[in-house]
Amino acid sequence: MTTKYKNVYVTSTSTVVGPYEFKGPLSKRFDKHYKEMYFGKDSLESAEVKLMSDSIELALKKANKEKSDVDVFIAGDLQNQIAASCYAARELERPFVGIYSACATNTEGLLLGANFIESKMCDNVLVSVSSHNMVAEKQFRNPTEYGGPKPGTATFTATGGASCLLTNAKSKVRIESSTIGTPIDMGQTDPMSMGSVMAPAAAHTINSHLNDLGRTIDDYDLILTGDLGRFGKEILIDFMKDEYSIDLSKKYNDCGIMLYDLDNQKEVQAGGSGPVASALVVYSDIIKKLENKELKRVLYVATGALFNPTMVFQKENILSIAHAISLESVE
Amino acid sequence: MTTKYKNVYVTSTSTVVGPYEFKGPLSKRFDKHYKEMYFGKDSLESAEVKLMSDSIELALKKANKEKSDVDVFIAGDLQNQIAASCYAARELERPFVGIYSACATNTEGLLLGANFIESKMCDNVLVSVSSHNMVAEKQFRNPTEYGGPKPGTATFTATGGASCLLTNAKSKVRIESSTIGTPIDMGQTDPMSMGSVMAPAAAHTINSHLNDLGRTIDDYDLILTGDLGRFGKEILIDFMKDEYSIDLSKKYNDCGIMLYDLDNQKEVQAGGSGPVASALVVYSDIIKKLENKELKRVLYVATGALFNPTMVFQKENILSIAHAISLESVE
Repeated sequence: MTTKYKNVYVTSTSTVVGPYEFKGPLSKRFDKHYKEMYFGKDSLESAEVKLMSDSIELALKKANKEKSDVDVFIAGDLQNQIAASCYAARELERPFVGIYSACATNTEGLLLGANFIESKMCDNVLVSVSSHNMVAEKQFRNPTEYGGPKPGTATFTATGGASCLLTNAKSKVRIESSTIGTPIDMGQTDPMSMGSVMAPAAAHTINSHLNDLGRTIDDYDLILTGDLGRFGKEILIDFMKDEYSIDLSKKYNDCGIMLYDLDNQKEVQAGGSGPVASALVVYSDIIKKLENKELKRVLYVATGALFNPTMVFQKENILSIAHAISLESVE
Repeated sequence: MTTKYKNVYVTSTSTVVGPYEFKGPLSKRFDKHYKEMYFGKDSLESAEVKLMSDSIELALKKANKEKSDVDVFIAGDLQNQIAASCYAARELERPFVGIYSACATNTEGLLLGANFIESKMCDNVLVSVSSHNMVAEKQFRNPTEYGGPKPGTATFTATGGASCLLTNAKSKVRIESSTIGTPIDMGQTDPMSMGSVMAPAAAHTINSHLNDLGRTIDDYDLILTGDLGRFGKEILIDFMKDEYSIDLSKKYNDCGIMLYDLDNQKEVQAGGSGPVASALVVYSDIIKKLENKELKRVLYVATGALFNPTMVFQKENILSIAHAISLESVE
């Protein structure tokens, strides 16, 4: 389902990252980074809460807003029962809407936030996501055999927190439209190859978005998927061509690839993933290019794999979903 | 944050329950029930998916709608990564917004759905929740010692699926307003006493709702909390009196108590809980009383405990939240 917006602006964004992300090509563009994985906290889970809380503080500071200015806080993450978001919400002390859409959570949050602003139900909506590599490894891949190799198709959960303040006050970038994705089941069962699981969902959402608005990819300067990684990116290009006769190759990139230096950071395998991966790239790099008009309109399609370890152990298929946000440079 | 709505109607609701709920006082009002806990499925987790899918089918059938009429499907549950909702969404094949607010998920879904309808972004929003007693026991209380006793303050996760179709077509009951709750931390750490954890969140949301709208509880025929249970109900009455000088006692009840026959169903201890508990009571009983004007306006305040087992093991406090929906009989 696609919705157009007239009055939804990106007022501020913020990015906080861990050491692996800081080694990547965008390192100088992040607002804050940590050198190890605990950030002074006693547990990895609490460290992830700190990533989100830090990003909230930074986004509000950049916008000259106080916590009390936030009408609604929308957040999600990969921890069971979205615990990182819940505990970050405790610190913010504002009305809280918890969401979950795996690594597509950020665009789900942005589109729900856009709905609140466009309908004038409120003035300031803060949307946050986080993920933490070691929290995700512990939770999704337990027991993680020490030194156990992973296939090259595996992706690497990014460590970071990212926030975006949406308001109706004119700024340099606006959310112009959004498309809510439909879950896709392609019969896939390999959690070590998420790119191939999620590529068809990205294709479905991009096609729906273009059809719903009567547009072609020529109406965009860039199509950006969330975290398909090196192999998923190629699959999406092929799939779009075969299934929808759309040639993405000239104006398409994937945030999971852009976040790291894949040739030198071998530990990230096929690329970055996690709800924060796409948010880190969009907020640190893409928004700035929209602000200075280097880019005019970008379709940001975060992609998520819907499953949990229990369902995988029970031989259920891994589903996927993608939600799209169209970001536009404001004249 | 409180929002008023002019054009959001409850078009149909549905309830599907397990054997414990069917033994309770509302047994004849449920649309469908199962006699055991697997419903022909191979796993408890898939059985929960079936509860939600059954309720979706029933809600659409009652409204004479097809799956393809659903513009947006909003759903959440207690399974890690809201897996029950994701797999039910696979069967529905419609745009899906995944949400999580523990046992307050149903009112979060209803208020997001109301936003979509009120703002004319779409015509038909389906909101679903589920929970399954044995899935929750396995996931939250593993290892569950065989025969291990629980304190009387423990609540019993309800087994059921419930759905509500919201549209802008006039019906006998409408959503008149909503209030998004703020997470509350009262320093509590006992997962066997959720009523006391959640009562302060209910109090905070009820008070915000009344203040935001300039109303008193005299403007409602009934205040209904989600699943505080026998002890939580008493705590809320005391807390509202002490903290806000509001006397709830004359027009207040709790869905967790109404769902079971507490005197004879000893297994439910202090009462029912889970996202579906309040939905089962509201959709099977309260909506009907609003339809026949036995009740004119009801404040439905679903209550949730925000935590996960990892956070409890790490000695973090259990947080709580409550989201409110005001349901009104249409003239």
